[in-house]
Amino acid sequence: MPAPSQRTTIRRKPERGHYDPPTIKAIIDDALLCHIAFPAGGSVHCLPTACWRDGEHLYIHGANNSRLIDALLADECAVCITHLDGLVFARSAFRHSMNYRSLVIHGRFVAVDAEKDKKMAMIAFLEHVSPGRMAQVRPPNAAELAGTRILRLPLAEVAAKIRNWGPDDKAEDMAIPVWAGVIPLAVQAGTPTPAAGCTSGAPPERPRALNGQTETERP
Amino acid sequence: MPAPSQRTTIRRKPERGHYDPPTIKAIIDDALLCHIAFPAGGSVHCLPTACWRDGEHLYIHGANNSRLIDALLADECAVCITHLDGLVFARSAFRHSMNYRSLVIHGRFVAVDAEKDKKMAMIAFLEHVSPGRMAQVRPPNAAELAGTRILRLPLAEVAAKIRNWGPDDKAEDMAIPVWAGVIPLAVQAGTPTPAAGCTSGAPPERPRALNGQTETERP
Repeated sequence: MPAPSQRTTIRRKPERGHYDPPTIKAIIDDALLCHIAFPAGGSVHCLPTACWRDGEHLYIHGANNSRLIDALLADECAVCITHLDGLVFARSAFRHSMNYRSLVIHGRFVAVDAEKDKKMAMIAFLEHVSPGRMAQVRPPNAAELAGTRILRLPLAEVAAKIRNWGPDDKAEDMAIPVWAGVIPLAVQAGTPTPAAGCTSGAPPERPRALNGQTETERP
Repeated sequence: MPAPSQRTTIRRKPERGHYDPPTIKAIIDDALLCHIAFPAGGSVHCLPTACWRDGEHLYIHGANNSRLIDALLADECAVCITHLDGLVFARSAFRHSMNYRSLVIHGRFVAVDAEKDKKMAMIAFLEHVSPGRMAQVRPPNAAELAGTRILRLPLAEVAAKIRNWGPDDKAEDMAIPVWAGVIPLAVQAGTPTPAAGCTSGAPPERPRALNGQTETERP
């Protein structure tokens, strides 16, 4: 990944900025969805969609008649992934904060067109959501693949921002007799609920994306 | 809230669309952060930020020198909130899905300028994150309030989209001998970690936002 661009250079709290590929990739791999900002019809729009990574690209998918997909092929966009990792409780109201790992990618999606490549991408997607699942279910058929579009965005113009430490109280507030620290937050899987008519098998593997956070030292 | 506009009318899977204020407000009240799409410098951008609701407005805050805040005051934006509520496992790869509650607001933020109103907004923010906390900590002083900008966006042009049911398998796939159903997902609070030097008190209340999901019937 090249040096940060004009629009990916983090100016506000630059000590929280990260541009190295392992940090970038770990944030994507821990995500099940992203938010995409894109222009269409004279407005900016923001929509959530499922995402996954393969190599140096972020992937998404959509239906053939998806207006989101049409809009993304027509112009540049910004993709944001955010993990909210904790609530930071300080001795003053003003110093309360949140711990997070976030990432923004700028660029333009391109379509993955060959049926073979689309199928490989769909396999990677399902494996991201539930390792081993593809071997157990009916794989996508030709009509389903033809009805799906796969887009990918290079991890070229990208920056991450991470806060992962406790409260930064001012010295004069340290004696205030109140609890201070971090309440960690994480997306967790609950008890699997079988569908009506499900008589078989054990529930699938939960996604690797829920297995934990990137460990990053405070700068 | 008025009828959906051209840009908030949900065309893809319209049966998942919701426009009623109780549904909209519940999705916001369950959120600790939103993603904002906005134009600046000839590009679209997407950034996460903390948010809360008071009455008929979504609120955010930022520093006086925040470029995000400057950009939002200068143009329209789109705000998106997404709760990922579950992974939906079908008998075919193609019918796998996710359960979610999402929401998009279009419009233009306006600044809350009066010190009294800013202080009330900061109190509402901290109470949203941790009920009762404001009474325990040092409240914001005049310099801190002067260094903070509060913006609010009316809940006028807004739409929600919800999926909260099991897999929609095709009839011919129902006999495939694989587990099908939903693995629920939720943001959960872990064990509070006291800051260095914290000798006092019990950890604060966790946010109401983590207490549960909106209940919505399948359309």
